[in-house]
Amino acid sequence: MDIGILGGGQLARMLALAGLPLGLRCRSLDPAPDAVAGHAGELVVGAYDDPEALRRLVQGVRLVTFEFENVPLAATDWLAEHVVVAPTPQALAIGQDRLREKQLFEALGMAVAPHRAADSRERLHAAVAAVGTPCIVKTRRLGYDGRGQVRLGAAATPADVDAAWNALDPAGGGGLIVEQFVPFDRELSVLAARSRTGEVAVYPLVENEHHGGILRRSRAPAPAVPAAAVRQAEQFVRAVLAHLDYAGVLAIELFLRGETLLANEMAPRVHNSGHWTIEGSVCSQFENHLRAVLGLPLGSTAMAGGGVATMVNLIGALPARPDLLALPGLHLHAYGKAPRPGRKLGHATVVGGDRDEVDRVAARAAALPAAAPDGWGFGA
Amino acid sequence: MDIGILGGGQLARMLALAGLPLGLRCRSLDPAPDAVAGHAGELVVGAYDDPEALRRLVQGVRLVTFEFENVPLAATDWLAEHVVVAPTPQALAIGQDRLREKQLFEALGMAVAPHRAADSRERLHAAVAAVGTPCIVKTRRLGYDGRGQVRLGAAATPADVDAAWNALDPAGGGGLIVEQFVPFDRELSVLAARSRTGEVAVYPLVENEHHGGILRRSRAPAPAVPAAAVRQAEQFVRAVLAHLDYAGVLAIELFLRGETLLANEMAPRVHNSGHWTIEGSVCSQFENHLRAVLGLPLGSTAMAGGGVATMVNLIGALPARPDLLALPGLHLHAYGKAPRPGRKLGHATVVGGDRDEVDRVAARAAALPAAAPDGWGFGA
Repeated sequence: MDIGILGGGQLARMLALAGLPLGLRCRSLDPAPDAVAGHAGELVVGAYDDPEALRRLVQGVRLVTFEFENVPLAATDWLAEHVVVAPTPQALAIGQDRLREKQLFEALGMAVAPHRAADSRERLHAAVAAVGTPCIVKTRRLGYDGRGQVRLGAAATPADVDAAWNALDPAGGGGLIVEQFVPFDRELSVLAARSRTGEVAVYPLVENEHHGGILRRSRAPAPAVPAAAVRQAEQFVRAVLAHLDYAGVLAIELFLRGETLLANEMAPRVHNSGHWTIEGSVCSQFENHLRAVLGLPLGSTAMAGGGVATMVNLIGALPARPDLLALPGLHLHAYGKAPRPGRKLGHATVVGGDRDEVDRVAARAAALPAAAPDGWGFGA
Repeated sequence: MDIGILGGGQLARMLALAGLPLGLRCRSLDPAPDAVAGHAGELVVGAYDDPEALRRLVQGVRLVTFEFENVPLAATDWLAEHVVVAPTPQALAIGQDRLREKQLFEALGMAVAPHRAADSRERLHAAVAAVGTPCIVKTRRLGYDGRGQVRLGAAATPADVDAAWNALDPAGGGGLIVEQFVPFDRELSVLAARSRTGEVAVYPLVENEHHGGILRRSRAPAPAVPAAAVRQAEQFVRAVLAHLDYAGVLAIELFLRGETLLANEMAPRVHNSGHWTIEGSVCSQFENHLRAVLGLPLGSTAMAGGGVATMVNLIGALPARPDLLALPGLHLHAYGKAPRPGRKLGHATVVGGDRDEVDRVAARAAALPAAAPDGWGFGA
């Protein structure tokens, strides 16, 4: 066994799938016995902070990496004592805290939304007053896919602020952060890999669309972004990688307003907005993450497959397999997870040379009805 | 579990890797406990003709397919009674017999080398006399990678014929076949998938180079093949697929002499000369084999990744990982097998837009020295 992964979901599964052709085998730790990374490698079932489970995870591996940043401190502490960890616990600590992320981004010269931290009900009232409304109140830690946040409108009252405090239950989560609501034109992300050797490779900028807090569509290269913003995003991700002496893939979410970029948050791991790289790039984010943490030469992040890629998430239920696979040039990635409303069950990527045509096929995939309850269908 | 595979080597492993993104899981049967398909799916360890092992293989699967054609008759008989088998036992029976292959090819109007069957020492002498020398004496069954054949030169004596009979030990193998030695310019292969629905997709023609009976390099599309030969190869593979009511991927090896094609043999399975399709085609031979046996729509066999692909096999020992991965645009496929002289341990595929440049990078990969005994190397 070569690589240990904390977490056994679809990101770990795709890391394991990318590792096998490199001659690398992965072992995941996950509390769920049906964690899907077990389909492509070993699975240790246990709690993330259970030393016995961690011991089984690290047995014989070269290093441990992560498919999510909200790793319990007890786990990172234990791991750091017993095995090489990549990216470093420092990067994880920053990546799991919306306040520290923004502080880092500002220190590196990147604009962020005006914000204030609040670790008590009183300070939340003060922070909302200072930032102004409309604003978004978020837990500093453990938020994802739109969870852990409350939006306060322009007419929000003190009672609304109290309700936000109560709803977010920040007691165990390290406090709250209030961010000014910055209207933006587009959501972007920049993904890059940095090898332990210091080599850096940056993927083309991605445009993302969310609904209900969940990523629905990613398009690369992000269409019609001003050249200055493209350059700035690349310089910025390089600065973050260097500052953290980072190893692995890092994703940073950005807002574009006119020609101005704002940094939102970072994910110190492979990222949903990079799934298109499996077919859309010469070397995928998953393979490059493994290359990077092992100190191997990075693969090219140039576009492949015609130069244009669109990914759509398949959420809650999957369409019938024959319907999906009949779409020309569509690449299906079904994660093997049990259906559940709002759950990411898979994604589909379309690559090609024509932006409109690629988007059209991807839209057809996203609009397909859910398969009949027998599941999938196998044609004639 | 969705698919059962007889055989657990690299072909089964790559089928399993292609299946997982489709939401399909594979279970392989192999006598070797370290069979590498076990890295990407379930592995049943047992003999191919052991009913108890076969019972465990088929438990709950939709169908069984094969990574090799030399399946013991006892296994195909048992399987055909208990589960859907694809391709059909008929296709396997022909694919494992060099004589029946040639009879089929001729019946479908394709030229083959002049040949005679011989099931006794006396008939071998007669067959060699009828075919003439130089010729190649082969076992009808169970030959692969250059094994199971003896070449008789123009000056071969009756003692040489006796020696060939003794060397090939045809008693258990279903007899011999004597083929006239036909000098050819180039070796080609044509791969195609046929779905249970009848849909057919043909990959671009491949040029193959063997040394010591083992495939060393495949290039696609085969450079500078006369258009008539390209058309003929495609029509021929379509005719074979239709005749056999075939489901799955089929590979046919061809010789090109001037503008004339000769059919050599067929493999009723995914084939080493199609490994380049993983990155070089929109849909790989592995994914298309699974789509085909399940009756799903086939994926496009158009070239991807720039239009030109070259694959080299990595045989006997693997180069150091950093050396391989530093080559621009190289895609490594290490099978996870223990090194052994002459053993296929992996392959590397290079794709791009320029034939010479792609070949140059592939040649560098093939020429790399073996890694130090510690194995692989992980860079800094």
